[in-house]
Amino acid sequence: MPKINENFLKLEKNYLFINIAKKVNSFLKKNPDAPLIRMGIGDVTLPIAPVCVEAMKKGAEEMGVKETFKGYEDSGTGYDFLKKAIAGYYKKFGVSLELDEIRVNDGAKSDCGNIVDIFDDNNIVLITDPAYPVYVDSNKMSGRTIIYADSNEANGFAAMPDSSVHADLIYLCSPNNPTGSAYTRAQLKEWIDYAKANEAIIIYDAAYEAFITDPEVPHSIYEVNGAKECAIEMCSLSKTAGFTGMRCGYTVVPSALHVTTSNGEDVSIAQLWGRRQGSKFNGVSYPVQCAAAAVFTEEGLKQIHENIAYYQENAAIIAKTMDDLGIQYTGGKNSPYIWLKCPKGMSSWDFFDYLLEKIAVVGTPGEGFGKNGKGWFRLTAFGDREKTIEAMERVKKLLSE
Amino acid sequence: MPKINENFLKLEKNYLFINIAKKVNSFLKKNPDAPLIRMGIGDVTLPIAPVCVEAMKKGAEEMGVKETFKGYEDSGTGYDFLKKAIAGYYKKFGVSLELDEIRVNDGAKSDCGNIVDIFDDNNIVLITDPAYPVYVDSNKMSGRTIIYADSNEANGFAAMPDSSVHADLIYLCSPNNPTGSAYTRAQLKEWIDYAKANEAIIIYDAAYEAFITDPEVPHSIYEVNGAKECAIEMCSLSKTAGFTGMRCGYTVVPSALHVTTSNGEDVSIAQLWGRRQGSKFNGVSYPVQCAAAAVFTEEGLKQIHENIAYYQENAAIIAKTMDDLGIQYTGGKNSPYIWLKCPKGMSSWDFFDYLLEKIAVVGTPGEGFGKNGKGWFRLTAFGDREKTIEAMERVKKLLSE
Repeated sequence: MPKINENFLKLEKNYLFINIAKKVNSFLKKNPDAPLIRMGIGDVTLPIAPVCVEAMKKGAEEMGVKETFKGYEDSGTGYDFLKKAIAGYYKKFGVSLELDEIRVNDGAKSDCGNIVDIFDDNNIVLITDPAYPVYVDSNKMSGRTIIYADSNEANGFAAMPDSSVHADLIYLCSPNNPTGSAYTRAQLKEWIDYAKANEAIIIYDAAYEAFITDPEVPHSIYEVNGAKECAIEMCSLSKTAGFTGMRCGYTVVPSALHVTTSNGEDVSIAQLWGRRQGSKFNGVSYPVQCAAAAVFTEEGLKQIHENIAYYQENAAIIAKTMDDLGIQYTGGKNSPYIWLKCPKGMSSWDFFDYLLEKIAVVGTPGEGFGKNGKGWFRLTAFGDREKTIEAMERVKKLLSE
Repeated sequence: MPKINENFLKLEKNYLFINIAKKVNSFLKKNPDAPLIRMGIGDVTLPIAPVCVEAMKKGAEEMGVKETFKGYEDSGTGYDFLKKAIAGYYKKFGVSLELDEIRVNDGAKSDCGNIVDIFDDNNIVLITDPAYPVYVDSNKMSGRTIIYADSNEANGFAAMPDSSVHADLIYLCSPNNPTGSAYTRAQLKEWIDYAKANEAIIIYDAAYEAFITDPEVPHSIYEVNGAKECAIEMCSLSKTAGFTGMRCGYTVVPSALHVTTSNGEDVSIAQLWGRRQGSKFNGVSYPVQCAAAAVFTEEGLKQIHENIAYYQENAAIIAKTMDDLGIQYTGGKNSPYIWLKCPKGMSSWDFFDYLLEKIAVVGTPGEGFGKNGKGWFRLTAFGDREKTIEAMERVKKLLSE
């Protein structure tokens, strides 16, 4: 009988958001008419930009005509037209990328989960806590040793490196999911220095970069000196352009990123990752890539920024409610997330149930993101304006009672 | 410094088809005007069906309107409308599937490569040789012990089980890539009996089922009794509906498929795989799923069968050329592949270079698929009719010289 990978038995049975969905479904079964407002899962609600719709339709039409039909991509790493668009976007932050340093994917989650395949199971992985569960789960699935850097009230939920601790792989997410905190250039430089001192590789999740407003906060880790020698960056159009249901992201693996094997052989990380993806991934749908490239056109950027501004205004409304209620929080600035301290000393899941049962508002229990999330809670700004206002009125009324 | 997964160093540096692409590109650099005909990589050339184009355009439009916009899929396993369409398709073969036994993906290659994550590295993996390189590479990447079942001239390139050999995981592909051979019901029953005797799991790749014409050859392994207790089936729309550039497939994990852990715990394979995918995959683009569902409509099936008939006619043309030349081959029937014995005792790569240099025809060296492929060569029927005829005329002329 095949032996299963028993590391799976050590995981929570279900992914956090599947657990939340179950609780919500059971609530809706009992209360089918409840005016539910979802501020839980980090999903967007505004439609994709008109330029993206048009580009995708055009791509679909090309697929239906022999002369313009596209089969397998030669490289499976993304069409040059999209890579050029992405490289052009990075130029705006002062970052130069070669096209072969960019790999287009079906969303950051896949690469974020799969990247660990190229590393030995015997590595020390450092993850800031709380964190996006994929970092933890994908490493637990391979039985890796995980150490945590605490993001907590004391450091504004932005963990900094501890030079007395060694790590080989480091996960950073900025602006952070779930805490909404964002590293400044100076803070990232500290992480890069730490990575270099440890000869470690940083896996940098920039999925929320489009929400950055503070000029001190870099959009890409490569804006900071030295990052190309120690960091892989992952980004996605999910939050940038509402692509959660379209599925397109990209990973940057700089050609300068090399490691030495146990025999002293020099190995390029890009080549290793390419070998992994060459065998286990076949590229992104052509019409999806067309839509993705449209995001980076002048008109596309204008259209997506309107949506981002809408979400930013929602974030400001939530943040103001917290201010009015005297509730502590991080995020809401540079981020679509508001990470708040549960009132009345409630636990994360108690507060989840409280909001769901009392006012039919769904958030995400901070505990689901790690031990430092205990007693904290995540709200997202991705909802409707009217629903965000309504939810905040309900919260205000409930917590003022 | 992070230790890399050194199993990667034991792999060929590049995926077979990337090597071929390099040789072809270098030939084209030297001979920019060569009238190249590609019969190498198994890529289709006919455009996707009109119903698929329309469905995708409609899906794209829905993504651009707030009321019909789709973000993350709740389950990430495919929309019910598509799963119902797939289940309906299986009904035609007499196979009943529950919707939660079907998982929609971005193509069979991804699942085929990733499925091994749920199994311990310490399993004996049986692969028929020659084989699609993904089976071998994805297991070598985890350092698993691979044993091979020989597909060779003697058995018509359709390996059968050897009861004296034990395996835990078994890869079967029928109709076979690269050999074009296809298992009959009776042959599959032998494999199922072998799997049951070994308490093994079969990973069954049905990517070429749409090419089956022989009623003795099942489209799905589940047409054969007992398969639901021992087999995972993977299929794709790549070859069925020309989706190589659209990226959509599906994996069937029957709920009856369970294993026992070392502690005697009963574990459902569907649940394990769901846990893996829940952390490392986020579902398929909604408009792509719309296009995929259109394949299974009455009109869709009619349109794709016209394309398949076209390729089948190409296969017949290639097969007839081999007959005329007295060259031995398998496939060409139930399959878009013709697997032929290299003439004049040439090696696979010599014959590859010979066809490329002399007549600008690109095929695939059998050796790239495993040791039993030495001296054999794969041609595909996915090309243009005119180019297929032209290539066969060139081959006939060259080999009659």
